[in-house]
Amino acid sequence: MKTLLIPAAEMQETFLNILLRQGYTNDRAEQLASVFTQNSIDGIYTHGLNRFPRFIEYTQKGYVQRDAVPELKFKNNGIEQWDGNLGPGILNALHATDQSMKLADDYGIGCVGLRNTNHWMRGGTYGWKASSEEYIFIAFTNTIANMPAYGAKDAKLGNNPLVLGAPYGDSAVVLDMAMSQYSYGSMELAAMQGRDLPEFGGYDTKGNVTKDPKEILASGRPLPVGYWKGAGLSLLLDVLTTLLSGGLSTHEITQQPAEYGLSQVFISIKVPTPGSALPIANIVENIIRDYKQSIPANSKSDITYPGERVLRARKKNQEYGIPVLEEIWNKIQRL
Amino acid sequence: MKTLLIPAAEMQETFLNILLRQGYTNDRAEQLASVFTQNSIDGIYTHGLNRFPRFIEYTQKGYVQRDAVPELKFKNNGIEQWDGNLGPGILNALHATDQSMKLADDYGIGCVGLRNTNHWMRGGTYGWKASSEEYIFIAFTNTIANMPAYGAKDAKLGNNPLVLGAPYGDSAVVLDMAMSQYSYGSMELAAMQGRDLPEFGGYDTKGNVTKDPKEILASGRPLPVGYWKGAGLSLLLDVLTTLLSGGLSTHEITQQPAEYGLSQVFISIKVPTPGSALPIANIVENIIRDYKQSIPANSKSDITYPGERVLRARKKNQEYGIPVLEEIWNKIQRL
Repeated sequence: MKTLLIPAAEMQETFLNILLRQGYTNDRAEQLASVFTQNSIDGIYTHGLNRFPRFIEYTQKGYVQRDAVPELKFKNNGIEQWDGNLGPGILNALHATDQSMKLADDYGIGCVGLRNTNHWMRGGTYGWKASSEEYIFIAFTNTIANMPAYGAKDAKLGNNPLVLGAPYGDSAVVLDMAMSQYSYGSMELAAMQGRDLPEFGGYDTKGNVTKDPKEILASGRPLPVGYWKGAGLSLLLDVLTTLLSGGLSTHEITQQPAEYGLSQVFISIKVPTPGSALPIANIVENIIRDYKQSIPANSKSDITYPGERVLRARKKNQEYGIPVLEEIWNKIQRL
Repeated sequence: MKTLLIPAAEMQETFLNILLRQGYTNDRAEQLASVFTQNSIDGIYTHGLNRFPRFIEYTQKGYVQRDAVPELKFKNNGIEQWDGNLGPGILNALHATDQSMKLADDYGIGCVGLRNTNHWMRGGTYGWKASSEEYIFIAFTNTIANMPAYGAKDAKLGNNPLVLGAPYGDSAVVLDMAMSQYSYGSMELAAMQGRDLPEFGGYDTKGNVTKDPKEILASGRPLPVGYWKGAGLSLLLDVLTTLLSGGLSTHEITQQPAEYGLSQVFISIKVPTPGSALPIANIVENIIRDYKQSIPANSKSDITYPGERVLRARKKNQEYGIPVLEEIWNKIQRL
């Protein structure tokens, strides 16, 4: 498979034209094209470029309601519930992030529950946004069931990504983690390339833990991070999103013909700045400096903080272009 | 080693008398004795009974300031910062939990950052408390560095427990997880009993993952849950606790002669109850019922939801008494 290097501006223009042809208004098409491109620049190809065709398909099928906008349904001071009306997940999540930041301005801390929304693509999008503007940020979403409980064979849990962000210098430090050890996208890629996963990622068909992605795809049993711990965290995140949004839970979403109508939560907090403390930037800098002084276990160790690889990919892809499999790029051109 | 079964009332009375002899006021001694006993009733022996002698030792050494009470240092609507003045971690954390619930009553959501506090013993204490009173609850603490980053040899990260709670029936569903796969307490117990851990828990001295607790204790390299994911989550929780409390971060705590002066965060949220949704109890009940219908992978599978084992232990220990190693009970009697 040949890899092309597509300049970010060309990719964004391509996405924009496709979205306009699908009937998206100029403003909405520009926002969507920008986020899909930024996710690709940042190296999160699975939720940038690679996912774009499915987003178009879901728009065409009506799972994603092209023109829908979120509506406020409930407010109690610093907490709000919005109905996403099945609009594009990225646009709804951007709105909810903004809204949680406004609530934080008014109440110190703000929490937005968003129901009937769609896949937000990359949770990090919202963490980078809020934390680059100096907010502490916590967000999570539920998903369709795609991961068995610890000790179970069938998928009852979503991989329910969790995002934590904090300001760091003029940028942010952002953790964006799903509750499965590896995504299906990365296991499929490893299987295609005929290589093992770096760590145990799930069970083989005999019930033993394995690094072989083909075996995990065959058993349908990816491993929750930390076994029972990631499974428990996934369950609680589903409970919290469902209660705070008033929307569907993982088991209800799973009964639908496709993954739509998700529930999400966005919490922004103004960082308190009492007189005595160091400036925020120094506090975070000191923590990360100490962490980076870890002694590597071996010559292959690459001890990065959450978001550091994103910054590396961003720099490289902005300079040299975004690596894209020719086959996928051709598919997108035909949309 | 002989195991005794101590009735809860006897254990609480024993703790109370020791605390009174240490000069704790009646009221504070009663609260502390009650929480240490409840943690033991709930089966969390590592942070109940087994930890009680160290709490007394820390009081005697002044790491725990017996009579100190928390002070409000900063307020911005729904967020507050309190200085714990190195008071007993349990009392400070109970106060911060109450305070976050009061803020949630006033603002829908409330966040308390608590600095200069001490070990809260069991995070679940605060989750069960807030969520049994119908609040959604999120809390986390930092700790001394006790876990290496992914790919590192030396401990730069705390195991920084995270607590998530939600109302469930007339009780709660509560996740209380540390970021290491196994606690040092459980690895030491397994080593003493000469058995392997059920899952990979860390590295041996050659750098391979192992289930042998002796090897992990020798290498000092327990595994973060989900490898790089739990490591990243631990780092972000430290950043968030440090910023929100204005207190010490893991690397600063680690420079002290013992683990004291911790930073913690407590967030309570009033569950929104819009007219259209099911009652809270049914929403949570439906999620847990579906989860419990998971198909077991094998005959040894015990698919429990977070907090279910606590309820089982509670029932059993209330009926039959709390199992205690005779050696530990004798040690406590001599305090």
